[in-house]
Amino acid sequence: MKKEIRILVTNDDGIDSPGIFALVHSMKRLGKVVVVAPDRQQSAVGHALTVSDPLRVVPFHRNGEMFGYAINGTPSDCVKLAMSSLLDKKPDLVVSGINHGQNTSINILYSGTVSAATEGMLLGIPSIAVSLASYSLKSDCGVAAEYSFNIAKKILKSGLPEGTLLNVNVPSLPKDKVKGLKITRQSDSQWNDKYEKRTDPFGRDYYWFSGEYKVIDKDLATDDAALLAGYVSVTPIQFKFTNYDAINKLKILEKKI
Amino acid sequence: MKKEIRILVTNDDGIDSPGIFALVHSMKRLGKVVVVAPDRQQSAVGHALTVSDPLRVVPFHRNGEMFGYAINGTPSDCVKLAMSSLLDKKPDLVVSGINHGQNTSINILYSGTVSAATEGMLLGIPSIAVSLASYSLKSDCGVAAEYSFNIAKKILKSGLPEGTLLNVNVPSLPKDKVKGLKITRQSDSQWNDKYEKRTDPFGRDYYWFSGEYKVIDKDLATDDAALLAGYVSVTPIQFKFTNYDAINKLKILEKKI
Repeated sequence: MKKEIRILVTNDDGIDSPGIFALVHSMKRLGKVVVVAPDRQQSAVGHALTVSDPLRVVPFHRNGEMFGYAINGTPSDCVKLAMSSLLDKKPDLVVSGINHGQNTSINILYSGTVSAATEGMLLGIPSIAVSLASYSLKSDCGVAAEYSFNIAKKILKSGLPEGTLLNVNVPSLPKDKVKGLKITRQSDSQWNDKYEKRTDPFGRDYYWFSGEYKVIDKDLATDDAALLAGYVSVTPIQFKFTNYDAINKLKILEKKI
Repeated sequence: MKKEIRILVTNDDGIDSPGIFALVHSMKRLGKVVVVAPDRQQSAVGHALTVSDPLRVVPFHRNGEMFGYAINGTPSDCVKLAMSSLLDKKPDLVVSGINHGQNTSINILYSGTVSAATEGMLLGIPSIAVSLASYSLKSDCGVAAEYSFNIAKKILKSGLPEGTLLNVNVPSLPKDKVKGLKITRQSDSQWNDKYEKRTDPFGRDYYWFSGEYKVIDKDLATDDAALLAGYVSVTPIQFKFTNYDAINKLKILEKKI
């Protein structure tokens, strides 16, 4: 008897976004899908956890059908809560997305989409984060959904290295303009931080983030450059933070002070 | 003429916490201190950024004196906003803390304290995150403040490797019980996720995170083990996520699918 494949799907744009709808549609071709996703937009929420507030689980319908469970929390909350309390069996795969906006380079750190896949990975489940390189909610998610399907199918068969998830970024292009898939490394792109200072109707100042993202690395082996060149970028990522080279240099700090 | 040292101090427990007060006190012995910190508790907020709301900057007083600027945002917001819009000169050092609660192992990912130091590091400033291994706001921060002073003094002199910040965790012990300082690596400790299911006064269910942190690595060269053994743990950390070993194994995904 063939084992039924189970896939947990979540995102950070909220359970009513077009991206998660397209993703669920493609994942259903692979197995049984359970959706547990934030009840609202959670972008740039990073790897935040909700520890000081209670979480609620509300069934959410789309087109008259049960679509999934909406949670008043972050993407990380959704995966943790689903795996520990809502699912009766561990899923075979966790897929997060399709995010509206790319999550390359240092954005991995700020990305709720990646954080959800991170929780899946930490719990020992092969996990994939999928983002589309367009912030418009009207962008077509069809190509990203198709690549998600193909990648997920292979990963369900071959697994992923321990402690590693896939960070997938898809160019916002028609299918025939996408050049293919590239396994990439994280690039060193940076944010040029800016805040616009404005005055509210009551004469009080406020600041609004208006930073610009600068791609500095042109090497096609990096996530940003591959994406800009029209490739689907797939980066195997892990969360090992130690700078081992620095350990010896810093031993001087161990001296009595 | 000796150059004046400037230090930006922030945290994630909020500008009115005991930890940041102790830290500011010790940093003032090294130079001019500017405090830009969240106006309220931001724990487990991770590397979140506020992009969909305006940020406000409000002067905050303690003991009748101007103490710093309170921001209605996350620790990352504070550093980004301070560096881009509030400070007239780049600081020589960014110090975040003293956090009430340790930030070892995978907690680096969830830690607002670390996220603030990360922003400093990304902007090219030597940066330090300091956490005390006690969640009680009544814990004595004196030892942690003294170690912060000594570490900061050395780092101001010698700098830090590029792209690297120091993640400092201090045991909650009297000074004579602290065994010294150890340069460590991140351990592989894990959260055992649990949620308590409860029912509210209206008969509706809610879930509250009640996970347990499991230290599995006993090697004193790791952050958790060193801390448990009574050492101040100092880990040089960076944010390079690529799993290079996995790149070749995954090349199979590049084949036409």
